[in-house]
Amino acid sequence: MNQMNVMVQRQLGHRTIREFKDMRIPEKVFDTLLAVARRTATSNGMQSYSIIRVTDPSIKKEIANVCNQEYVGRVPELLIFVVDQFRNNRIAKEKGTVTENAADMDRFFQGFTDACLALQNVVNAAESMDLGVVYLGSILNDSAKICEILKLPKLTFPVLGLGIGYPNQNPQLKPRLENRLRVFENSYGVFDNYLEEIKEYDREMTTYYDLRNANRRVDSFSDQVAAKLSNSMPNRQEMLKVIGRQGFRLQV
Amino acid sequence: MNQMNVMVQRQLGHRTIREFKDMRIPEKVFDTLLAVARRTATSNGMQSYSIIRVTDPSIKKEIANVCNQEYVGRVPELLIFVVDQFRNNRIAKEKGTVTENAADMDRFFQGFTDACLALQNVVNAAESMDLGVVYLGSILNDSAKICEILKLPKLTFPVLGLGIGYPNQNPQLKPRLENRLRVFENSYGVFDNYLEEIKEYDREMTTYYDLRNANRRVDSFSDQVAAKLSNSMPNRQEMLKVIGRQGFRLQV
Repeated sequence: MNQMNVMVQRQLGHRTIREFKDMRIPEKVFDTLLAVARRTATSNGMQSYSIIRVTDPSIKKEIANVCNQEYVGRVPELLIFVVDQFRNNRIAKEKGTVTENAADMDRFFQGFTDACLALQNVVNAAESMDLGVVYLGSILNDSAKICEILKLPKLTFPVLGLGIGYPNQNPQLKPRLENRLRVFENSYGVFDNYLEEIKEYDREMTTYYDLRNANRRVDSFSDQVAAKLSNSMPNRQEMLKVIGRQGFRLQV
Repeated sequence: MNQMNVMVQRQLGHRTIREFKDMRIPEKVFDTLLAVARRTATSNGMQSYSIIRVTDPSIKKEIANVCNQEYVGRVPELLIFVVDQFRNNRIAKEKGTVTENAADMDRFFQGFTDACLALQNVVNAAESMDLGVVYLGSILNDSAKICEILKLPKLTFPVLGLGIGYPNQNPQLKPRLENRLRVFENSYGVFDNYLEEIKEYDREMTTYYDLRNANRRVDSFSDQVAAKLSNSMPNRQEMLKVIGRQGFRLQV
């Protein structure tokens, strides 16, 4: 049973949960989630990310507005993971060292990576304790607004939000691309005809019911891709500019 | 025992492993890792990342050179996680849709996030099956070179490498910043004097033995931060430029 343990079973059964029971997460369980975040691997040991726990209902609502997702205002726990070079910059400054490197894009990406790793680690801990989660990439619909709402100082930047609680829904597993289309050996593999390669996956996707859309079937994957790529959100295009305004040196 | 299950115990005990037993990972175990990657949450369901499994010893060595870490050439399994908007761009193109949005930075960051989440999910699966891992942010020492080595097409970009195998060392747990310094409520918290706040942590760090440095004690955290921020690697400063050369529209 080694290659199919309980943890792996949970991971293989991951689904996004958007509706939660009206039930608080016990303090001990929540502290465990934060303890796991703290122990997550971090680039160069620099620990260049932070977490904002949003408990104020009015702030939650403001964030829900940015996300354009009403349920965000109702998640039992809402954590926002942020790149944080502010703290180490201050530490170096107090040490009397030159610190302008804290603002470079290398450090930005290190912090961005740290934040994502910690978040996924928290997700796995949460799901192992019967909690469910929703990832909120939608906080980046307006990253400048999130910086303002959470009073993020220079050299910090929001990465991803996470809603956590006890699941009050049981969604279907969402079909996924086969690994042969995205795991390659030694060099990237290009296919001649992608629509042909994903035919079966396209078919499978149309049998999936997305709870968000009143139990209506969804489009095939290729139709979803085509639709998504036909649109882009203006504010989300400004991300690099906002990163620059938060004090990072873009140097392009 | 709910709030301290086996998974959480593994997560709290995470250490980087750099020396592995000369032992292959059984096919079934490895397939399970890839199955977990496949089921990881993904932004908008777009699955915009890919994995390159490096099995060719000469390619491993080339990557070890970029990493400037000899042991990378000897890891039993080496996976490179990459942003991948190439695939969806091709799917949309074959559908006859406008696809220039695949090149925007919003999509780049979605792919970057997807790649990090999948990697951490794989790490947790690996550790739950008694494997150990080393994260390789050092592949970005020369991201252009990695693109070349792995033949990464336009609209892809390397994010992070992962070495996996059965541990042949048992390093000490590395001390970490207290959560009160990086978990805040409702808005970012700034401290007046960081050196004062981390005094105890600084002390604790000097009692930690890093196996990399022949069991010599390491510097205090604030000394490490000051030293790290005094340096920056020129090639790593070029990351945004390389992202642009890989076809992403920087638009700053």
